[in-house]
Amino acid sequence: MNFILTQDYLDQFTEAVHTKDTDFIISHTDILHSADISAILDELETDECHYILGLLPDQVRANIISDLDTDIRIDFLQTYQPSEVAEILDYTDSDDAADILNELPLKMREEVISHVEEPQDVMDLLHYDEDCAGGLMAKEFVTANINWTVVECVEEIRRQAENVEKIYSIYVVDNDNILLGRVGIKKLVLNRSTTKVADIYEPDIISVYSYQDEEEVANIMQKYDLEAIPVVNVNKQLLGRITIDDILDVITEQAEQDIQAMAGISEDVEEDDTVWVLSRARLPWLLIGMVGGMLGAKFIGLFEGQLLAVPAMAFFIPLITATGGNVGIQSSTLVVQALADTGGLQESLWRRLFKSFLVALINGFVIGIFVLGANVLLTGGEIILSIVVSFALFCVVIIASIMGTITPLILNKFDVNPAVASGPFITTANDLLGLAIYFSVAKLLFSMAV
Amino acid sequence: MNFILTQDYLDQFTEAVHTKDTDFIISHTDILHSADISAILDELETDECHYILGLLPDQVRANIISDLDTDIRIDFLQTYQPSEVAEILDYTDSDDAADILNELPLKMREEVISHVEEPQDVMDLLHYDEDCAGGLMAKEFVTANINWTVVECVEEIRRQAENVEKIYSIYVVDNDNILLGRVGIKKLVLNRSTTKVADIYEPDIISVYSYQDEEEVANIMQKYDLEAIPVVNVNKQLLGRITIDDILDVITEQAEQDIQAMAGISEDVEEDDTVWVLSRARLPWLLIGMVGGMLGAKFIGLFEGQLLAVPAMAFFIPLITATGGNVGIQSSTLVVQALADTGGLQESLWRRLFKSFLVALINGFVIGIFVLGANVLLTGGEIILSIVVSFALFCVVIIASIMGTITPLILNKFDVNPAVASGPFITTANDLLGLAIYFSVAKLLFSMAV
Repeated sequence: MNFILTQDYLDQFTEAVHTKDTDFIISHTDILHSADISAILDELETDECHYILGLLPDQVRANIISDLDTDIRIDFLQTYQPSEVAEILDYTDSDDAADILNELPLKMREEVISHVEEPQDVMDLLHYDEDCAGGLMAKEFVTANINWTVVECVEEIRRQAENVEKIYSIYVVDNDNILLGRVGIKKLVLNRSTTKVADIYEPDIISVYSYQDEEEVANIMQKYDLEAIPVVNVNKQLLGRITIDDILDVITEQAEQDIQAMAGISEDVEEDDTVWVLSRARLPWLLIGMVGGMLGAKFIGLFEGQLLAVPAMAFFIPLITATGGNVGIQSSTLVVQALADTGGLQESLWRRLFKSFLVALINGFVIGIFVLGANVLLTGGEIILSIVVSFALFCVVIIASIMGTITPLILNKFDVNPAVASGPFITTANDLLGLAIYFSVAKLLFSMAV
Repeated sequence: MNFILTQDYLDQFTEAVHTKDTDFIISHTDILHSADISAILDELETDECHYILGLLPDQVRANIISDLDTDIRIDFLQTYQPSEVAEILDYTDSDDAADILNELPLKMREEVISHVEEPQDVMDLLHYDEDCAGGLMAKEFVTANINWTVVECVEEIRRQAENVEKIYSIYVVDNDNILLGRVGIKKLVLNRSTTKVADIYEPDIISVYSYQDEEEVANIMQKYDLEAIPVVNVNKQLLGRITIDDILDVITEQAEQDIQAMAGISEDVEEDDTVWVLSRARLPWLLIGMVGGMLGAKFIGLFEGQLLAVPAMAFFIPLITATGGNVGIQSSTLVVQALADTGGLQESLWRRLFKSFLVALINGFVIGIFVLGANVLLTGGEIILSIVVSFALFCVVIIASIMGTITPLILNKFDVNPAVASGPFITTANDLLGLAIYFSVAKLLFSMAV
């Protein structure tokens, strides 16, 4: 029921391309969903894809090209003539068509537009930022005037049937195109043809402004369980519609970005990218880690005298730095997730810090005692060092908690993805902080003990 | 257009509850979406919520209770009589009703079921695991027999209109309830009443088996842009329907779990949980880090002689451990994301390892040279130590890459969430590995230099 691509099937397919076995290709692609054909094309060379796409019906070809990864699509479309691209766009939903046009080089974009059959819808969408509601919306939807009857709505649906694949609701507007409400398609089915739209429409409709951020739109649609949401301008005039499949992509992409930010991967890469792309995406964060590590080395060097006096101090360096890192990531991750959840009341900064402090107090106390016990039992003699380590751990937990709580809040204020706070940059900073605390505590306690 | 909860509004609301100002509560909840009322109730005490819910229409109350967090709901429902819970469930979709029943203590569950009006639908769902298709599906959907006409379908929709809030498609079955295809509701609107279902239905329908995993279902719905998917048993008989709002929750929850696994938070907690819950969720991983750190201390202790001979070796301990951690997380995160993307061909283990090795070779070489240069420039004299550090870094990068690639693959084989591989447990293991490499390389090179 769900197609799974196997190496065997792929080999047959490649073979058919090379022997130009059009019968094989047409008969197989005919029964496959465009998303499955995309998965096959992902594994082939550009000229092989080009050949297969040439054999497909216009609509399927347009669906596949809309599905492609942006970076692959840019290269791919350059192998087509502008008029051919325009022909593809004629079969593409306006939101995807606008995205595709925005990716093209300026000159090619103009040439393509000059060949598009109905350029107005797409041109309307071109100027919106791709990560706001305007950049996500499509022009394909069904509107009804408040003065219409059910039969007039049905006629409108018939007129639009080819353009609008999924209808969900009919949006009700007045003569100035101001959004008044919606009529569920179920209601149309169940009411008489002569019933007035004004009598059956629901005036409580949730809409978004074209300038609202895509994550805000995703939150609203998820909160209210909507499968489509109308987009309006500041005068509440209906501009377009965002459907849930686009929002699903927004949510998945955001989650991937957060995880990559935490892992210290700087570009949007995938495991099957080239070795060179993968290395480049990973190097920047590793080098930042190097700089941090070198600073750490310099810093420990300042305490060389102390290390010579108590060489066992070096043993606990990894314990201290790892604890700072772990606690910092835990704290920042909780704040990042709370920031993403816009449903409830956001806690105030002071309440957050206070709570973070209490949690750190408990955790710092428990691990301090744990390590003290373990150290005394295992090493026996070195009581002062054991106390130094445990007290330093306690301080590290508290300070890393507070840093982990504040950093994502600050990043968020400056519109940087707060998930970066759970990434290697902050972990490196926490390492240094941990070392500073450890050696300061040691200096203090050892001098007191002497 | 989108309700935002303010402290001010919340205060007015709480005031109204305490003065039993039913007019205020009813007039305000009347214009709010149930999701917004939920957000308000989240901030109130149990008895305050109980009071407000008593004033709401049955359907709204049922929606709100379906929306509640599981742990809050369990406590909350215990304040109701079984017959009252049954009354709420009569207004709840069957999938949510089954979830709620499964949360109740066994005795209360039986009592509630004995009061439910039409218990069959809900009882059918009770025995499915909550994370498979059967556990996500609802019994509310519209079916048509293949022999029906359009007007019979419309009659069926009218009969089900109250139960099935969102229809999307009518599922077409034969006399044995075997799923044959679907009719989009748009087609019903556009065809004559006497048209036969057999003439307009689409036989290509994507469905899932009741035993399929929720993540698999999410992948299929996302890949094919579906807003609903029918669920069948092994005989292809239609059992239920999963809608996209439930899948959105699955996707969001999975992303949160991955991130919490990476951050080392062991329970599903939120920032606004109590201090005690938060501490408990964070402690296990911190203690694992402690054990790792203590092992690290023991391990470095074995090389005390070497440290006394070259005290500057201690300076670079944080650099080594941090690099192992960073590289390991980068590698495992890429594998985790590739595992989640089930659309294309999965690369073979050997190809993965080879590629990971090449990337590590490049990155290890670059950071090794970088640190060597920096060390020679900054410290001047200690050439051998600088070479030891750089060569150890190079080895750490390669071994941590391979570990980071293999670990999530192994976890995945054993059905453990592979995201755990990017978490503190593996980072701790990588710390130890890094130390072992560092001191071994040092022993080797210093002995060669002497």
